[in-house]
Amino acid sequence: MDVKAAVAYEAAKPLTIETVQLEAPRAGEVLIEIKATGVCHTDAYTLSGSDPEGLFPAILGHEGAGVVVEVGAGVTSVKPGDHVIPLYTPECRNCDYCLSGKTNLCQAIRVTQGKGLMPNGTSRFSIGGKPILHYMGTSTFANYTVLPEIAVAKIRNDAPFEKVCLIGCGVTTGLGAVIYTAKVEPGANVVVFGLGGVGLNVIQGARMVGANRIIGVDLNPDKRALAEKLGMTHFVNPKEVEGDLVAHLVELTNGGADYSFECIGNVKVMRQALECCHKGWGESIVVGVAGAGQEISTRPFQLVTGRVWRGTAFGGARGRTDVPKIVDWYMNGKINIDDLVTKVMPIEQINEAFDLMHRGEVIRAVLTF
Amino acid sequence: MDVKAAVAYEAAKPLTIETVQLEAPRAGEVLIEIKATGVCHTDAYTLSGSDPEGLFPAILGHEGAGVVVEVGAGVTSVKPGDHVIPLYTPECRNCDYCLSGKTNLCQAIRVTQGKGLMPNGTSRFSIGGKPILHYMGTSTFANYTVLPEIAVAKIRNDAPFEKVCLIGCGVTTGLGAVIYTAKVEPGANVVVFGLGGVGLNVIQGARMVGANRIIGVDLNPDKRALAEKLGMTHFVNPKEVEGDLVAHLVELTNGGADYSFECIGNVKVMRQALECCHKGWGESIVVGVAGAGQEISTRPFQLVTGRVWRGTAFGGARGRTDVPKIVDWYMNGKINIDDLVTKVMPIEQINEAFDLMHRGEVIRAVLTF
Repeated sequence: MDVKAAVAYEAAKPLTIETVQLEAPRAGEVLIEIKATGVCHTDAYTLSGSDPEGLFPAILGHEGAGVVVEVGAGVTSVKPGDHVIPLYTPECRNCDYCLSGKTNLCQAIRVTQGKGLMPNGTSRFSIGGKPILHYMGTSTFANYTVLPEIAVAKIRNDAPFEKVCLIGCGVTTGLGAVIYTAKVEPGANVVVFGLGGVGLNVIQGARMVGANRIIGVDLNPDKRALAEKLGMTHFVNPKEVEGDLVAHLVELTNGGADYSFECIGNVKVMRQALECCHKGWGESIVVGVAGAGQEISTRPFQLVTGRVWRGTAFGGARGRTDVPKIVDWYMNGKINIDDLVTKVMPIEQINEAFDLMHRGEVIRAVLTF
Repeated sequence: MDVKAAVAYEAAKPLTIETVQLEAPRAGEVLIEIKATGVCHTDAYTLSGSDPEGLFPAILGHEGAGVVVEVGAGVTSVKPGDHVIPLYTPECRNCDYCLSGKTNLCQAIRVTQGKGLMPNGTSRFSIGGKPILHYMGTSTFANYTVLPEIAVAKIRNDAPFEKVCLIGCGVTTGLGAVIYTAKVEPGANVVVFGLGGVGLNVIQGARMVGANRIIGVDLNPDKRALAEKLGMTHFVNPKEVEGDLVAHLVELTNGGADYSFECIGNVKVMRQALECCHKGWGESIVVGVAGAGQEISTRPFQLVTGRVWRGTAFGGARGRTDVPKIVDWYMNGKINIDDLVTKVMPIEQINEAFDLMHRGEVIRAVLTF
């Protein structure tokens, strides 16, 4: 079938809206009409050419929501008409990782997904007979896309696509880092570095679970108002701190953060995030993605005296199990997504949406088809 | 009273056996006759002058066992005749750290202990009227010593001092790292770097809790036999591994260690210990103490893909609560301490005991009075 897609032909070039051929879903696959998709920094990272694993030509996009149109042989968990969110972290429920109960990093289709292919080793997208690669197993910058059944979360049918598409990445990454990875408990003091789309969701996650102080750290004072609306109790602008930022945060948290979250991808900030944690038990969660080859470091004394360094991907959420619950939380008013969608635009304006994100003028721009 | 003690007058000099004056215990303090004490690398580290927090003149020693002789006013938890193990990590059960339930790092007397003083800010030891400092709050290289009540673990009276003194440091540090810090579960694969007094106890801790593969890593093949006796299932000598050690360990553990333990204090090995952990859930525990100012580093990707970096001090054990249980485990045959005590010597031979340790000829030399 013909589909409308934004194609990334090569790194660091604008995307092109094209008519692309999409094959029907094969066994275990699902054809989805994408109704809305967010534009995320990870798309921009790959498009920039900085991502050593980035492949072209490809159809980017990984933060979408849509409707099942057709299912391949053997698909039982969704049917045409079901509303779904594509999952770049699948959940097969059968691999060693899923069965461990300790991680959300299902490895069932890891190898082919990393190559931009479906599990059988081929792409469903092509132009003029030449294959176009999938991206993160989702390729939501197309009005139709094909996904493995295990990479589709079924959600309620009354949730608005332009809002809940963010649960496909940013919302779940931030909220999940608090709830599934850190397991923040009521009364905890939390420090969040970086108040972008992910950091803001860490803040509302911390509020949701009853954190005490929720301290946001950002160089941009314009981030303050929305962060406060979502639950931030204290704003710290490192430019305005006299002396050492870490010492200031330790003082603000009466001995250090119980949990800290780095949502920028800056390895120096990751160190500050660890070292502002409370002696004895403070845990720091790396959420941001650092540039290729960059390293974090600290004195091991920080760990020996009880701090813990961990990371999270997709917020530790098991996509098919947890994403539908997060949609419910949104629909029940427990979390705010409306204020994170700064702008809704047609897919034809996708390059402008990237520009708005780069200029920091939107939390999220959402594209519709 | 006059006591016999090995005094460290200055860094990097042999200890001197002296008659030292010891004041009676004050309120909340306990006078203990030390019956046996191990010599540990931490004593040697401080004596060498490399420890930036080392203070002189002092009476070193922190791995002892003895009998309560006299108690100061208000002491209720022990009485004369009780057998005890001195605790360099006290357990007041009242500070924020003790009450957190998340750490064993009681801070009740942290500041004065770090200065070599009792909680009231003075020393009980002196020679010719000049104060001699305490060390780690324990100073077990003396036949009598004074400790705060909160730094004394009461143990059963039938346990042999020359064996259970090791529970004052090495045994608990290794065993506790497995049981209290990592919480290793049955069936887990474990990698232990460094098969000295602490690493061997990690091994027997892993065996005790039902670990599957227990892999020991050491450059010295002489360590193999005892490690196997204590539960090691596989020995890896890095000198004999062709190619990358981390890749070899990942292969041996079928994807990576569920838990790894660094028991050397080498920051490069700490990185290997983290990176040989299983994607998704592997946890690496820093047990060894690195040299002053040294740093650990890794790519944050290691954490984002699910590995966890943590540390431990005194094995995460709460001294007054857990040490008596570990003594019971020894007396019940659950753990082996006899083979860890390579040599028992009189306190007069303390400098020879240090030499034996430096030459790697003993797991532990134990001194008696």
